[in-house]
Amino acid sequence: MSLSMFKASVPAFQRTLTALDAILDKASAYAEERKIDPAVLISARLAPDMYPFSRQVQMATDHAKGCSARLAGLPVPSFTDTEATFPELKARIAKTLEFVGSVRPDQIDGSEERPVSLKAGPRELSFTGQDYLVFFALPNFYFHVTTAYGILRHNGVPVGKLDFLGAAQGLLQG
Amino acid sequence: MSLSMFKASVPAFQRTLTALDAILDKASAYAEERKIDPAVLISARLAPDMYPFSRQVQMATDHAKGCSARLAGLPVPSFTDTEATFPELKARIAKTLEFVGSVRPDQIDGSEERPVSLKAGPRELSFTGQDYLVFFALPNFYFHVTTAYGILRHNGVPVGKLDFLGAAQGLLQG
Repeated sequence: MSLSMFKASVPAFQRTLTALDAILDKASAYAEERKIDPAVLISARLAPDMYPFSRQVQMATDHAKGCSARLAGLPVPSFTDTEATFPELKARIAKTLEFVGSVRPDQIDGSEERPVSLKAGPRELSFTGQDYLVFFALPNFYFHVTTAYGILRHNGVPVGKLDFLGAAQGLLQG
Repeated sequence: MSLSMFKASVPAFQRTLTALDAILDKASAYAEERKIDPAVLISARLAPDMYPFSRQVQMATDHAKGCSARLAGLPVPSFTDTEATFPELKARIAKTLEFVGSVRPDQIDGSEERPVSLKAGPRELSFTGQDYLVFFALPNFYFHVTTAYGILRHNGVPVGKLDFLGAAQGLLQG
């Protein structure tokens, strides 16, 4: 079967968001065990002018839902960025997975040349569907998940690359 | 034009490695300006049991060359992991870009079902070509580039998301 726009997007988002959800569980358990206020981890940053953990999770979900919606020609669901606890962040991931999982392959497939325009800060960006997926949505999505992971690792949360790849959920094998 | 295995792999690696190369220049300039021994940045880590910056760059290039070679059914070029300076790391990126750029679309296209086996630590992993690309090579590649970027950001190097996306090289537009 040929690589499709759907296969290169939705299942990748699903797998990595599922892995991220389990990473949040480990972070939450770590905070509890060590008597660390979860807000410390949730507001942690790698640099003073980088976004905190909560915003990294929000942005990862934004790229997943934004990409799935835009490629399918659907309106992008709007979530308010108010999550400030692990359960709230997990709920956001769950909402994202629900939306992403509702997009059908036939809505996304064939979107290679679909024009995609979006605002990124002050910039108005225009892409074809496939350039948007390959050069913008996937790099950004993995950027924010990895940065969220890096913030937790930097703060001692016992997670590893296999967690990032979803091995614990049996997702590592192709 | 349909999304192809080539389009989803080689151009993505080329773009992000080009961006990473420019990020190395900024890190090197920052070290010089601040009279920081470059080795401090090159050996910096986000956590004591994470790989240092140099190894993150090596692993990003490993995934780029490994994926391009495996999908094309070519032997994976072997590089010794000895880089310890910014010029040496830049040379590794250049060597990787040279190899990746030598792989032709017709060698990679149609590799969706090509069996790909590799060792990841103690695990022997087996994938189809498309599962390997979507669920292993791309997430790992972006993981290591993002972690390299995060290490530099954490150490004050003045780079931003637009550097990660290659905007300075005019690569952000699709």
